[in-house]
Amino acid sequence: MSYSKNALIGIIMGSSSDSKTMKGAAEILDTFNIKHEDQIISAHRTPNRIEEYAKYAEKKGFKVIIAGAGGAAHLPGMIASNTLIPVIGVPIMVYNDKRDGKNDLRFSSFGGLDSLLSISEMPSGSPVVSVGVNKSINAGIYAAKILANEFPELKKKISEYKHTQYNSVVKESIEMKKLGLSKFVLKKFK
Amino acid sequence: MSYSKNALIGIIMGSSSDSKTMKGAAEILDTFNIKHEDQIISAHRTPNRIEEYAKYAEKKGFKVIIAGAGGAAHLPGMIASNTLIPVIGVPIMVYNDKRDGKNDLRFSSFGGLDSLLSISEMPSGSPVVSVGVNKSINAGIYAAKILANEFPELKKKISEYKHTQYNSVVKESIEMKKLGLSKFVLKKFK
Amino acid sequence: MSYSKNALIGIIMGSSSDSKTMKGAAEILDTFNIKHEDQIISAHRTPNRIEEYAKYAEKKGFKVIIAGAGGAAHLPGMIASNTLIPVIGVPIMVYNDKRDGKNDLRFSSFGGLDSLLSISEMPSGSPVVSVGVNKSINAGIYAAKILANEFPELKKKISEYKHTQYNSVVKESIEMKKLGLSKFVLKKFK
Amino acid sequence: MSYSKNALIGIIMGSSSDSKTMKGAAEILDTFNIKHEDQIISAHRTPNRIEEYAKYAEKKGFKVIIAGAGGAAHLPGMIASNTLIPVIGVPIMVYNDKRDGKNDLRFSSFGGLDSLLSISEMPSGSPVVSVGVNKSINAGIYAAKILANEFPELKKKISEYKHTQYNSVVKESIEMKKLGLSKFVLKKFK
Amino acid sequence: MSYSKNALIGIIMGSSSDSKTMKGAAEILDTFNIKHEDQIISAHRTPNRIEEYAKYAEKKGFKVIIAGAGGAAHLPGMIASNTLIPVIGVPIMVYNDKRDGKNDLRFSSFGGLDSLLSISEMPSGSPVVSVGVNKSINAGIYAAKILANEFPELKKKISEYKHTQYNSVVKESIEMKKLGLSKFVLKKFK
Amino acid sequence: MSYSKNALIGIIMGSSSDSKTMKGAAEILDTFNIKHEDQIISAHRTPNRIEEYAKYAEKKGFKVIIAGAGGAAHLPGMIASNTLIPVIGVPIMVYNDKRDGKNDLRFSSFGGLDSLLSISEMPSGSPVVSVGVNKSINAGIYAAKILANEFPELKKKISEYKHTQYNSVVKESIEMKKLGLSKFVLKKFK
Amino acid sequence: MSYSKNALIGIIMGSSSDSKTMKGAAEILDTFNIKHEDQIISAHRTPNRIEEYAKYAEKKGFKVIIAGAGGAAHLPGMIASNTLIPVIGVPIMVYNDKRDGKNDLRFSSFGGLDSLLSISEMPSGSPVVSVGVNKSINAGIYAAKILANEFPELKKKISEYKHTQYNSVVKESIEMKKLGLSKFVLKKFK
Amino acid sequence: MSYSKNALIGIIMGSSSDSKTMKGAAEILDTFNIKHEDQIISAHRTPNRIEEYAKYAEKKGFKVIIAGAGGAAHLPGMIASNTLIPVIGVPIMVYNDKRDGKNDLRFSSFGGLDSLLSISEMPSGSPVVSVGVNKSINAGIYAAKILANEFPELKKKISEYKHTQYNSVVKESIEMKKLGLSKFVLKKFK
Repeated sequence: MSYSKNALIGIIMGSSSDSKTMKGAAEILDTFNIKHEDQIISAHRTPNRIEEYAKYAEKKGFKVIIAGAGGAAHLPGMIASNTLIPVIGVPIMVYNDKRDGKNDLRFSSFGGLDSLLSISEMPSGSPVVSVGVNKSINAGIYAAKILANEFPELKKKISEYKHTQYNSVVKESIEMKKLGLSKFVLKKFK
Repeated sequence: MSYSKNALIGIIMGSSSDSKTMKGAAEILDTFNIKHEDQIISAHRTPNRIEEYAKYAEKKGFKVIIAGAGGAAHLPGMIASNTLIPVIGVPIMVYNDKRDGKNDLRFSSFGGLDSLLSISEMPSGSPVVSVGVNKSINAGIYAAKILANEFPELKKKISEYKHTQYNSVVKESIEMKKLGLSKFVLKKFK
Repeated sequence: MSYSKNALIGIIMGSSSDSKTMKGAAEILDTFNIKHEDQIISAHRTPNRIEEYAKYAEKKGFKVIIAGAGGAAHLPGMIASNTLIPVIGVPIMVYNDKRDGKNDLRFSSFGGLDSLLSISEMPSGSPVVSVGVNKSINAGIYAAKILANEFPELKKKISEYKHTQYNSVVKESIEMKKLGLSKFVLKKFK
Repeated sequence: MSYSKNALIGIIMGSSSDSKTMKGAAEILDTFNIKHEDQIISAHRTPNRIEEYAKYAEKKGFKVIIAGAGGAAHLPGMIASNTLIPVIGVPIMVYNDKRDGKNDLRFSSFGGLDSLLSISEMPSGSPVVSVGVNKSINAGIYAAKILANEFPELKKKISEYKHTQYNSVVKESIEMKKLGLSKFVLKKFK
Repeated sequence: MSYSKNALIGIIMGSSSDSKTMKGAAEILDTFNIKHEDQIISAHRTPNRIEEYAKYAEKKGFKVIIAGAGGAAHLPGMIASNTLIPVIGVPIMVYNDKRDGKNDLRFSSFGGLDSLLSISEMPSGSPVVSVGVNKSINAGIYAAKILANEFPELKKKISEYKHTQYNSVVKESIEMKKLGLSKFVLKKFK
Repeated sequence: MSYSKNALIGIIMGSSSDSKTMKGAAEILDTFNIKHEDQIISAHRTPNRIEEYAKYAEKKGFKVIIAGAGGAAHLPGMIASNTLIPVIGVPIMVYNDKRDGKNDLRFSSFGGLDSLLSISEMPSGSPVVSVGVNKSINAGIYAAKILANEFPELKKKISEYKHTQYNSVVKESIEMKKLGLSKFVLKKFK
Repeated sequence: MSYSKNALIGIIMGSSSDSKTMKGAAEILDTFNIKHEDQIISAHRTPNRIEEYAKYAEKKGFKVIIAGAGGAAHLPGMIASNTLIPVIGVPIMVYNDKRDGKNDLRFSSFGGLDSLLSISEMPSGSPVVSVGVNKSINAGIYAAKILANEFPELKKKISEYKHTQYNSVVKESIEMKKLGLSKFVLKKFK
Repeated sequence: MSYSKNALIGIIMGSSSDSKTMKGAAEILDTFNIKHEDQIISAHRTPNRIEEYAKYAEKKGFKVIIAGAGGAAHLPGMIASNTLIPVIGVPIMVYNDKRDGKNDLRFSSFGGLDSLLSISEMPSGSPVVSVGVNKSINAGIYAAKILANEFPELKKKISEYKHTQYNSVVKESIEMKKLGLSKFVLKKFK
């Protein structure tokens, strides 16, 4: 069986407004040629779909579920309680309702700490693991690492990704060393 | 008696600058056809009006009081200490005084945590309950749920509201599943 | 119908270890002669029981549900998403696993802040309200206040409770004024 | 008029359980021979006594009010809103309800931060000032500093107190310098 | 002696960049016709000026010192340690160095909590009191309340200020009650 | 290949003082009959062993690494940067040095929040996932869930574990419902 | 040997996006005529370069390493574990991935607290010291203070820098005293 | 000149109650045979001694000052503002005044975060660096690393210390690997 034939990863999120943040997971999985299926499951607005989705995910043979949620962020934990498939939670920093019109500053009350704690502080027996706030890309890479246990050809792809990163850092470092920090900044941010 | 004849809900807030945030409560109650009366009662600038308002609310027959307040946020607790009517507090994220002129960034020091704690951490005997920071809409729905105990026809209205939410999520989920996350984002945020 | 005939309040909690903290709610309801029914519903260990309990509560005619939970504290929000009955959440400060044996210090990582945020920061549409951390007694009194809308005879009972508190404070204040603070402390804590 | 004839300072607190923490204020005022009157005024259990006390304090000629409160800590702000007498707030770290019996660990959820913010973050126009958590002694000294504006003979007393502190620190420092830190600790904590 | 003849209040701050925030104190004192003298004293860049300023303030007969400071905010505490004049600290939310050029978002790491704690958590014996973050206006009013102990004619001025506030709130409340919250917002923020 | 023949999980921790907390992971893996190998790798005291261990783990064929660490908690992230094996981090609440002798209270400055953030807030490309503070047992179950993708017979074991939990909760709930909360507490904690 | 001949300070950072924040260190060292060498070393993307850089730094004779890092911020601690050269950490406030396009608000979840703790809370034996969040300039000055132990001529340069600061503060203070705070603000921020 | 002839390190602290926590610095310096001189300098109780001590330290030729302080923790910053000698701050977790007698639980409101921020968040120009809360031992080792720039024979001593740590970890790891985690814990904590 090839990991790129059927969807092996289910990406879900609590709201369509989370889709921009969660896109990072989809894109990195696409980079690795890993198939995924994306849905919106709201723990609070569509509670009955949680158990339904959990059964669906098992029937489809998903091997990892990536679940993004903000605020109270119950989605990852509730899915995890309904299935044996490992769930990776992505805490999402929620923006507050705007105050003074379209161009207003809207930002988060708790910077995603509320969601990080709601995802990670699960009781014993129903674990969810969490990546950093808004770090959907890391959830995607972690899912790939899990799959690579079964599909060793994935290891090569992830290694290549890491080598590209490595080379990019080294190249920039050489330039900084040559130019010095001040000139490096001038050039990079001009 | 019909719930839409006389005002059954009193909405109060500590300052006219809170009115934008509190509007959410008024609008959802309007959606449910629940009458409400709106006032500004400042715990600190008009302290004698607290007891006065509490008596007024009991005389008018309010069944729930929704009280929004920011910063030290004493309003919900002080009203609750003066009446048996259940009080729902709405912590409001206060913006600081501007620093550098009209277009400056002004934001909150504590993200509403100060108000959330000041509302919820009441001593035993004089409870106030709190919704999330700036979540006036949830205060409105919760008030409707309380009223629905006495006015069962309200249950239908709230159910309809929840079904609309449900259908909206499911519809978006179907579209995301079909398009995939990346294309969904492109379409939604273009 | 009398409020003391059938259980009108459902008290639930996520674990039997929460029972000590939640006892405060039961006792104050007993004081007011309000019937309640107490159960353990774990959002994570018995997820299917959430929907089941929500239906049961509606069938039994509960008018308020008091839900205590610690850590990720998903129980209040998940119940609220499955019913129109108003839910009062009680954030519970969770003690960590002991480290060094029976007499060891075990305490909470987040002092209940994790649960307070997980309970209050619900998305729009599915409100849960929260009392202060471990303040189950306030949840009980708040439930009584809600019931008192329908059962006015309850108002008298709550008033009596508040008068007792009032008199107790005044009596102690008179003693403190007479003795002075230092002697008052000596007498009270001898 | 002498500052030691009539009570010039009113010490109040929200509960008799705060008396131990507030004792520090009384004792330091006694040291300075400043008369004070001590009462319990609960913002929530005896709300009508707030305005009453404010009037009483003005009639009695109090020049400073020291108000200690824990949790939601509304007392200092509510008193300050009812009088022109300057109010010094003392945030008190509240201990939670015990969990497992008499010898159990009981501690605070928020370490007094809830009270510190509830006291200091007052809206413009009704200021309360705050000392550190549980620092009732500093509230007493600060009150003495205010009085010393009118009663210069108090300055000498406060200076003496500071000189005693000064000399005590210098004496210990000389000993530490002579013995070295390790031996100093051995001697001091044997 | 009249309170408006000589400067009775010293306003100091740690940096000229704090001047905008501290202006609120100067303006409210001007409103009350209270003379003040304004200086910049940096605890870290001009440490020897602390003791110097303390002596100067005593010689000039200042009765209150208002000291604003951000970040580590040592200024209020260090001044207070050098004089018996009561010091009111104003924690200032410090903006970080800009990152990406002139129009960039610059905001505070700790929202002023660092300064609030550095000002209030003084050791016993050298009290500083703190108003809320950036609340220089409240520091000014509090200073006026202290002066009013000696200059009773000030009480009238502060009362007038409070009455103006009172009337403004009541007027807006009447309008909100008449229009309803939604229309009030439309009118106010159009 | 059977999952119980060779060690498939590497458990590591930063210090022998973490061993008590990490024991929970070992015990739950033992319950599932999953072989694991346990070592102490200090990111700071034995930095060269990180790369060494990463290579060793790959050579041994470990499929998951569980890494516990407190304080700055660099171990999980540094291991993850050196291998493609998925790493589960366990933030450990660090106790401070004792202050006043053997029986003294020693507790954590940051309740494990420092470690939770240090583990989860990894930059893009080198993900570590985190369970809750001190929740080593959840790390063990999560590792089992990952293995169950390859070893379906493990699913049965995890299901049994969850059923046992389920039945235990239901049994206690029935008892609580029958006895009522107060009597339940009396019986359980007598 | 002169301190301005060879690079005595190594400035490193975890990513080129940190370069703007770290530029402050380079500029102040340039002011003092202290040579430094600047590189990018990513603890996670180029883990093997940590040990390599540590050896290189010792060979080059660096006397201080200034290491800036955001988020999990493992770089300063990992370098410090590989060398005896003192390491000064600079916690960098990390901006989150943008949400809604180019002009969107992007800000930090934890305001740099995550990095401050990850840098300072090192275990005993491998110390890293931390300056304030984003305070790279202070890291540069501190490095100069360390060098000044060996190169006394540097003391004069640092003193000059401090005198310039001193004079600038005094000059502004004189102007503020003369103009008064309100006019000072008008002039400075016009 | 030998580093063990005259005191090269000044250890100071704000109070004799900090001496137990600061002892760690003295002991590790003793281990390295580095002479130090220990004093108590209170920024608030002995403010004039700050400048005095700074001059004394320069005259004595101290090359590093280690300054421990709790609460508002102004000592390290004030010393650093008066001298060019590098200052290492040690934030100390302050215990609150006891509440209920000798055996009562006394703990810190802010876990040392107040002091950590007060030490590290110094304004540009007067840097203090901070080690972790209560980590006086790390301050001692860091001071030794600074001295080792001038006294290369110290490098050998610090290396030996690190090797001892290394060997101790490796030895325990070997034992844990052999026994397995559960038996290791049993043996270590029996």
